[in-house]
Amino acid sequence: MTSPSDPGPEVLDRRATIVGTGLIGCSIGLALRQRDWRVTGTDVDESRVRRALELGAIDEVGSDPDAELTFVCTPVSSVAEAARAACGRGGVVTDVGGVKAPVVAAVDHRRFVGGHPMAGSEQEGADGARRDLFEGTTWVLTPVATTDDDAFALVRSVVATLGADVLSLAPERHDELVAQVSHVPHLTAAALMTLAADRAREHSALLRLAAGGFRDMTRIAAGHPAIWPDICVENRDAIAIGLDRLMETLGHVRDLVLAEDRSGLLSALEEARVARSSLPTRLARPEELVEMRMSVPDRPGVLSDITHALGENDVNIEDLEIAHSVEGGRGVLVIVVAAASSPLAGEVLADLGYHPSARSLA
Amino acid sequence: MTSPSDPGPEVLDRRATIVGTGLIGCSIGLALRQRDWRVTGTDVDESRVRRALELGAIDEVGSDPDAELTFVCTPVSSVAEAARAACGRGGVVTDVGGVKAPVVAAVDHRRFVGGHPMAGSEQEGADGARRDLFEGTTWVLTPVATTDDDAFALVRSVVATLGADVLSLAPERHDELVAQVSHVPHLTAAALMTLAADRAREHSALLRLAAGGFRDMTRIAAGHPAIWPDICVENRDAIAIGLDRLMETLGHVRDLVLAEDRSGLLSALEEARVARSSLPTRLARPEELVEMRMSVPDRPGVLSDITHALGENDVNIEDLEIAHSVEGGRGVLVIVVAAASSPLAGEVLADLGYHPSARSLA
Repeated sequence: MTSPSDPGPEVLDRRATIVGTGLIGCSIGLALRQRDWRVTGTDVDESRVRRALELGAIDEVGSDPDAELTFVCTPVSSVAEAARAACGRGGVVTDVGGVKAPVVAAVDHRRFVGGHPMAGSEQEGADGARRDLFEGTTWVLTPVATTDDDAFALVRSVVATLGADVLSLAPERHDELVAQVSHVPHLTAAALMTLAADRAREHSALLRLAAGGFRDMTRIAAGHPAIWPDICVENRDAIAIGLDRLMETLGHVRDLVLAEDRSGLLSALEEARVARSSLPTRLARPEELVEMRMSVPDRPGVLSDITHALGENDVNIEDLEIAHSVEGGRGVLVIVVAAASSPLAGEVLADLGYHPSARSLA
Repeated sequence: MTSPSDPGPEVLDRRATIVGTGLIGCSIGLALRQRDWRVTGTDVDESRVRRALELGAIDEVGSDPDAELTFVCTPVSSVAEAARAACGRGGVVTDVGGVKAPVVAAVDHRRFVGGHPMAGSEQEGADGARRDLFEGTTWVLTPVATTDDDAFALVRSVVATLGADVLSLAPERHDELVAQVSHVPHLTAAALMTLAADRAREHSALLRLAAGGFRDMTRIAAGHPAIWPDICVENRDAIAIGLDRLMETLGHVRDLVLAEDRSGLLSALEEARVARSSLPTRLARPEELVEMRMSVPDRPGVLSDITHALGENDVNIEDLEIAHSVEGGRGVLVIVVAAASSPLAGEVLADLGYHPSARSLA
């Protein structure tokens, strides 16, 4: 293989099929169509594929026998069957499932390249799709010894054009690592949330004590859980090992606490702080985020005024939260924007009469 | 009654002292000065108090012998000593430490009201201070039977003017609840981050797989850990119980995973999703308020009993006033609650032997 980014056939001839038009499938469709691909799509749920068509994520409903690349974007438990069928139709096939070793083993085809974009898993549904969903994210590919080199090179180059950083890993290694940074954290978020809710039944004041840290930690537990049982079962061994490691570490922390070992606690927390601070940021979008907080009148229309004004000035709102105030008819609006956008956002807000305070989330 | 909040002395005469001019102390200073208080401040670190002066968080360096209110904003381990010294100088004293029972017991003064604003603990330093830091947050106060009613009412009203929702809890209850929603989650974030970093030493790709969920979950581990050893030691029993509960829950999840129990996993995750979705942001602005007036014995502990009972039943006290009888013996307590909460408030008060009259303030 001499050219890892083979541009492939003429751009106008490029054709792809999406199998499974949920959030990830539709985001891939939108991104490919923006790059002049012709995209067809199918889904076991007919209303979902019609919605994909309405949203412009696909050009046409159906499989394309001439597609050079098929993205299988179904839930993990049905990836293998759908991928084998796609391999039978021809072209190169990849998937986006959160667990790789069982899928790669079950498909076992030279034109199949396992894949997993590290994006958007806590959402679902075509309406959450975004054509820039993959920009700056890591997209894992899991070619194995029997994978055709050209198939891998094709998937690699297409995924890279969607703005993702491609990372190639053995399927088993992928599964072990995502257990650590995705599956175990997700289950832990759910456990923390459930425990707090249990205590809140006795002490209803508890959840009012939940400040930003608790909200951050449990945010992923708000996602629809439908995809998770399959992921947990398919990756059960790595997840069990990860949970055991976490319980062991928490047991050690408990011992330090009960031993009143201040220096041991400080070392443990300092080690975590250093590690968190060196967590790599998204490569394609290294800019920091800025949180802007402002007092707003608690009346209808305020939020739409602010978001429209920012949107018209091309300031992308990364995150938004509104806290209603009990006293005085005012609330607090918190928006998160890219650091590069924050001066403009500040001007737009000032024009509307708001005076936000800003702090970096880096 | 037209003014449920006693306006206190003339606005221009209001004076406060901040002991410990870090993030919280300076944010209180900024918020009070914005409301025309005269604020003085001290800190064991002279450069820090000079910085507070530069930032406009205080008017002057030093203690004010005429301060009606002193906020002790030092680390938990030095709160008791600083608070006792402040009580000796006179006026009402409160603190902002993250653990309350040991502090309240150690200070043991009728003009001391323990407090804990649920904001900003993951940061430190005057430069992170914001005058709106407390808007929309919950601020816990922990009066006890020996606490002077007027001292509590003063701290309550001042904290409410900073935009916080005041929640009155027994010190031990506060410590138990924050272990669950703050201390244990913080230690868990650090454990997840450290485990990932350990694995990353072997597999350098690992941290590139860390998507938004992992970043959210570990964000609080990026805070400077200096305040945490003290908090962990002071609240060790509640934290150990919380960690044990979490380990037990994670062990149960591990069993579900290894048993390939898809429906058990789905139920557990769905329970967490529902709980996370109903995590209160702020109470919606009530359509109307109800004033409840009752005769109460003029003796220590009455106010803390009433506010604790309402707090534990999640009845938010919008405003509170206590009028001492000139003849002595009995006083009149007026509380204002949301109309929707008033039947529950009535029951809670009846259980305590009070028979309030209620009228709408709509």
